[in-house]
Amino acid sequence: MKMKLYNVAYSGNSYKVRLLLHQLGIPCAIIEVDILKGESRTPGFLKINPNGRTPVLDDDGFVLAESNAILAYLAQGTRYLPDDRRRWALVFQWMFFEQNSHEPFIAASRFWLMHKPDNPERADVLAAKRESGWAALQVMEEHLAKNDFFVGGYTIADIALFAYTHVAHEGNFPLDDFPKIRAWIERVKAQPGFIPI
Amino acid sequence: MKMKLYNVAYSGNSYKVRLLLHQLGIPCAIIEVDILKGESRTPGFLKINPNGRTPVLDDDGFVLAESNAILAYLAQGTRYLPDDRRRWALVFQWMFFEQNSHEPFIAASRFWLMHKPDNPERADVLAAKRESGWAALQVMEEHLAKNDFFVGGYTIADIALFAYTHVAHEGNFPLDDFPKIRAWIERVKAQPGFIPI
Repeated sequence: MKMKLYNVAYSGNSYKVRLLLHQLGIPCAIIEVDILKGESRTPGFLKINPNGRTPVLDDDGFVLAESNAILAYLAQGTRYLPDDRRRWALVFQWMFFEQNSHEPFIAASRFWLMHKPDNPERADVLAAKRESGWAALQVMEEHLAKNDFFVGGYTIADIALFAYTHVAHEGNFPLDDFPKIRAWIERVKAQPGFIPI
Repeated sequence: MKMKLYNVAYSGNSYKVRLLLHQLGIPCAIIEVDILKGESRTPGFLKINPNGRTPVLDDDGFVLAESNAILAYLAQGTRYLPDDRRRWALVFQWMFFEQNSHEPFIAASRFWLMHKPDNPERADVLAAKRESGWAALQVMEEHLAKNDFFVGGYTIADIALFAYTHVAHEGNFPLDDFPKIRAWIERVKAQPGFIPI
């Protein structure tokens, strides 16, 4: 296969890419990286991504990091990234929102809860992420009160936001008070080619 | 003027947009938002951007938030965003890196140092951002050891990263040990149409 994905099975950022690849019908070799064993910080991996993060896509030798940049790369020219100049820009608006206002709080809380049970800083780290995490979900809830998807139809903006939102409860952000988000989650799950994390 | 920018004068995120607008020769009305007085959280502003953040561009009624999405919108079809599919994707890779691995640490440290002198949480917040801030600068330094700009010639990836890097010392991240970054800063400042923050 010409495409390879350096992947973390439980990571929402990696899942975004696997989901879009599946929906596009693109075969891809999966290379699992055990970040808990430091495999994303080895000299070999840092040659692939000097930022030491996953996922990383290798498309026949072209190496690309940052989950949402990978989504954009794969979605170019497909219905998952609209051509219309304004809709196109709004897709990126929501993907930057995801990486700056959502993922650092909700994904990071999930990671600490799942993988750092004994870390003495855990309670403080989690507490510091509460307010911003809830705020991000509130922004999504209000948008979804008036829209079925984030930008017109289903796009990579939905994929980017779905990845950590549908498992937000695992970061102690249960969605009980967010009925519009819960309905949107069901709409995403009903898309052709959907696969679970 | 058909274009309006909701702007914070000292913010790197707002400056990114002003810099590109100037380099593109696009006139734009500047509407200053005093975020320290809560002006980005008023009901009126939340109608413009429900996420309560600046900058926001209003292009003849089309409203777009997220600084790097605004850069991409304005740069479409110009030399600041390459057409080549791989270079295009790498521009987004670096812009997502900026919003996830750089801005939350370096920009946020600068904000706390500039604007929250008496906050009791200040020392803890700043301490928590040191390691990740230095790591982001190290990734940039290594890339710039082999490249004049982030992706081929000068692009919006450089604008996105320049905004807070060239004032990193104001966040207590002095660039003394980053000679390649300092040389790149001079190359950015030498670009046609450059304006200071």
